[in-house]
Amino acid sequence: MKRISASFLPPIAFTDRTKTPMYRQLYDWFRQAILDGRMRPGQRVPSTRALAAELKISRIPVLGAYEQLLAEGYFETFVGAGTCVASSIPYDSPSAVAVKAKVRKGIHETAEKPGVQYIRPRRMSYRGAALARVLPQSWLDNLGAFRVSLPALDHFPIGVWSKLVAQHSRRPAKGIMAYGGPMGYMPFREAIAEYLGTVRGVRCEPSQILVTTGSQQALQLSAQVLLDPEDRVCIEEPGYTGARQAFLTAAAQLIPVRVDHDGMNVEQMVRRDGRGRAARAVYVTPSHQYPLGMTMSATRRMLLLNWAARSGAWIIEDDYDSEYRFGSYPIAALQGMDADARVIYIGTFSKVMFPALRLGYVVVPKDLVRAFAAARDTADGFSSTLYQAMMTDFIRDGHFARHIRRMRMLYMNRRRALVKAIDAQMGDMLEVIGAEAGMHLVALLPPGTNDVAISKHAARMGISAMPLSSCYLKPPVSSGLVLGYGGANEQQIRDGIRKLRMIVQSAPAVRNAV
Amino acid sequence: MKRISASFLPPIAFTDRTKTPMYRQLYDWFRQAILDGRMRPGQRVPSTRALAAELKISRIPVLGAYEQLLAEGYFETFVGAGTCVASSIPYDSPSAVAVKAKVRKGIHETAEKPGVQYIRPRRMSYRGAALARVLPQSWLDNLGAFRVSLPALDHFPIGVWSKLVAQHSRRPAKGIMAYGGPMGYMPFREAIAEYLGTVRGVRCEPSQILVTTGSQQALQLSAQVLLDPEDRVCIEEPGYTGARQAFLTAAAQLIPVRVDHDGMNVEQMVRRDGRGRAARAVYVTPSHQYPLGMTMSATRRMLLLNWAARSGAWIIEDDYDSEYRFGSYPIAALQGMDADARVIYIGTFSKVMFPALRLGYVVVPKDLVRAFAAARDTADGFSSTLYQAMMTDFIRDGHFARHIRRMRMLYMNRRRALVKAIDAQMGDMLEVIGAEAGMHLVALLPPGTNDVAISKHAARMGISAMPLSSCYLKPPVSSGLVLGYGGANEQQIRDGIRKLRMIVQSAPAVRNAV
Repeated sequence: MKRISASFLPPIAFTDRTKTPMYRQLYDWFRQAILDGRMRPGQRVPSTRALAAELKISRIPVLGAYEQLLAEGYFETFVGAGTCVASSIPYDSPSAVAVKAKVRKGIHETAEKPGVQYIRPRRMSYRGAALARVLPQSWLDNLGAFRVSLPALDHFPIGVWSKLVAQHSRRPAKGIMAYGGPMGYMPFREAIAEYLGTVRGVRCEPSQILVTTGSQQALQLSAQVLLDPEDRVCIEEPGYTGARQAFLTAAAQLIPVRVDHDGMNVEQMVRRDGRGRAARAVYVTPSHQYPLGMTMSATRRMLLLNWAARSGAWIIEDDYDSEYRFGSYPIAALQGMDADARVIYIGTFSKVMFPALRLGYVVVPKDLVRAFAAARDTADGFSSTLYQAMMTDFIRDGHFARHIRRMRMLYMNRRRALVKAIDAQMGDMLEVIGAEAGMHLVALLPPGTNDVAISKHAARMGISAMPLSSCYLKPPVSSGLVLGYGGANEQQIRDGIRKLRMIVQSAPAVRNAV
Repeated sequence: MKRISASFLPPIAFTDRTKTPMYRQLYDWFRQAILDGRMRPGQRVPSTRALAAELKISRIPVLGAYEQLLAEGYFETFVGAGTCVASSIPYDSPSAVAVKAKVRKGIHETAEKPGVQYIRPRRMSYRGAALARVLPQSWLDNLGAFRVSLPALDHFPIGVWSKLVAQHSRRPAKGIMAYGGPMGYMPFREAIAEYLGTVRGVRCEPSQILVTTGSQQALQLSAQVLLDPEDRVCIEEPGYTGARQAFLTAAAQLIPVRVDHDGMNVEQMVRRDGRGRAARAVYVTPSHQYPLGMTMSATRRMLLLNWAARSGAWIIEDDYDSEYRFGSYPIAALQGMDADARVIYIGTFSKVMFPALRLGYVVVPKDLVRAFAAARDTADGFSSTLYQAMMTDFIRDGHFARHIRRMRMLYMNRRRALVKAIDAQMGDMLEVIGAEAGMHLVALLPPGTNDVAISKHAARMGISAMPLSSCYLKPPVSSGLVLGYGGANEQQIRDGIRKLRMIVQSAPAVRNAV
């Protein structure tokens, strides 16, 4: 039944055919009438008795609504004078302000969303505006063959893992559910320190390890703690876009340094740095250059460390997938060679375990620990303690080492299958480069090929092939595809290459070159 | 057995009494000798045959070590000339650089860590240095009585939850383990939008909801997207330190605005803003002011919205614990009154569920969605998809609404117990203020009491009582304690107050005042 009041008030329409209680309908109606300017500051409202009578309802919901409106300051009462709309309410209601301003000023549309009309310009920060301009990467929208950084989820020991999950969530300790410390869960940090010391040659104490949600957060924290606006950061060209973005949010100036077969050209960087304003930091992936896949030579490692020690610059070492090396023994981290505590070492469990685990770490020189801890606290507090505790068990019980060994074999075979499929099907269009390591390889296209167009086309066919040119800050000098082989089995790899062949064949530059 | 080589090389010591394989010991030895400058660029090394003979070991590990040293660029070979330390290796090794520089320059000790010696100054960013100076808050080190924001973990429906965990982790979908989108898991965003619309009067579409790891991340993302260095942000005084820190990492200028019994003094803010450089944003907790606990009046809400619409400023509304209101009906969010899409609305599951869940959200005006998504992508990618999926089920199956109802009753009783205990035991020293809502209250101390000293003393006794003065940016005008009652049961509350009484009684200002 719909009831309408017919007094001097704008008509109150309310109904009992809804779950919303009557007091709430009345409250909402008065509140909206005031917000819209249909009821004015100081305007008298009927007594609860009169309104109840008029609407032919009990007085109880009317009392409830009035009480709430009084408590929130929409109404006021004076002894003898009854109840009014509070006289302090602005005469211009928010929507009146909106309408008036639109009429007076002409309507302001945003660049981001033409058609939506706002009163005033919608100013973001420079950083925000730059972020809004980041191009969509359609090749990351699907989880099909060749998705970079995707591990073999179907080979993850989910049985062991879910048993651990069940164990830990059945009767969680208070500390597991409450607020954790910004540096992370101590037993987990101890396990990481031990692992890194043994397997990666990293020299650190557990107190230097900050648990993050992944390598991206480690990059952003490093940027925040180390870089002021306009500070120069040397990055690899081509290189990892995630790192670039992190440094840009600190308003740093990016100095791209070319990569050759020995990794970042450190000699060139040092020469250039000597001429200009000194760089404050350098970002490198020495174990397995991202995306090209080479390993930084011993000479360049030592040159880099010497330069950092002499110039007082920081080295950010991203060791994102060094667990997997097929051709040779694993290569120790740069961090372990550092005699001057200049290296910030970043690693992640996203690729060895699974991305949605959201666990990574950064090994921080001792004198930076306080700043990093405070930066993490300010960024988002701490990482899920449950996952940290589970991961500690997973490492301590030997599952982690076993899983890495199994995956190393699997990825080696997948890499071979991919190289073989490329040789067989696309040998005339793609040239595989990079060390036998990690979970992706780069296949170069004939010069001048529009790899972005190929990647977009592939994405529409359910294939995720990242264009090499997207890894360049300056105009790209080569064209190619970054192909992940972690997440696709050998059949999917062969099928993927068959599809990719058709896509690449139809690209104009390839047609001419082949 | 320990074997030592006695050639022209520095002595090679290695042993078979360790798990480290022999090739690795040899590799490590040569590598370290080169890094330390004990072996020089161009220096000849014995042939694998000669070294094996000298050490009386098989040639296989020697071959393995040499191969690896060649691959990494420590060694080089020339036909006919045998194997040498690579001539490109810098003559100054990293540790030689360190030693020389220390001798030449005098030794540089850091301010942060006197005694540790580095070659060059350890320059952090201004932001990093400021973060390193953030004072430790010893009252947050324990989970004892009165810990602010800690929910009643022992009343959490852990049975239901762990069943959900088990369900979701037994056979997780690929999408649950792989990379997720920066805005979050769509079914979860839909559930949040519905919840906020019904319960909080928030008007939004799921596409406007960005899932975060908690309200702190929402604050930092807002700061990044909206604020340039030196931009002015009005904040509540006293107010939430986490918000202050987030704005400071964007190098914003904080303008504290006093809070009175109707919340932030918006009239004063608008007047002041008219005189100086206009504020770019304002941060408010209108439902339940943090920490004082009052509710912003209808008049001030409308004034604030009108001002934002006219000046083009953003309003950051932090609705951190609005689920819990005991005395009156819940108060609708400011966001729902906004006719000009100026409000960024922040909420969290840390308090309604449990902190280590690491899930919160921010409702973003449509034209800011792209920038926020890119900012999240750059900050740390995405939130744990498993938890998002579980939380979706928890909401959809009605557990969430039920849990909130139960907790509301529980917290109401705990609040009453706390107020009663204070009245009975500390009525002469503490004055409780704020609305009957949330999970904490403020108890004012006699003017001039050193509340930080009391909090530190309490922390040593296992009691977490936050000093009110720590919430002030400028010199504090009142002294008091912020007491959480969510995480302590009635017995613990009474015991806590008994202890607190002794602590407060011994504070000099209180002794004089009482």
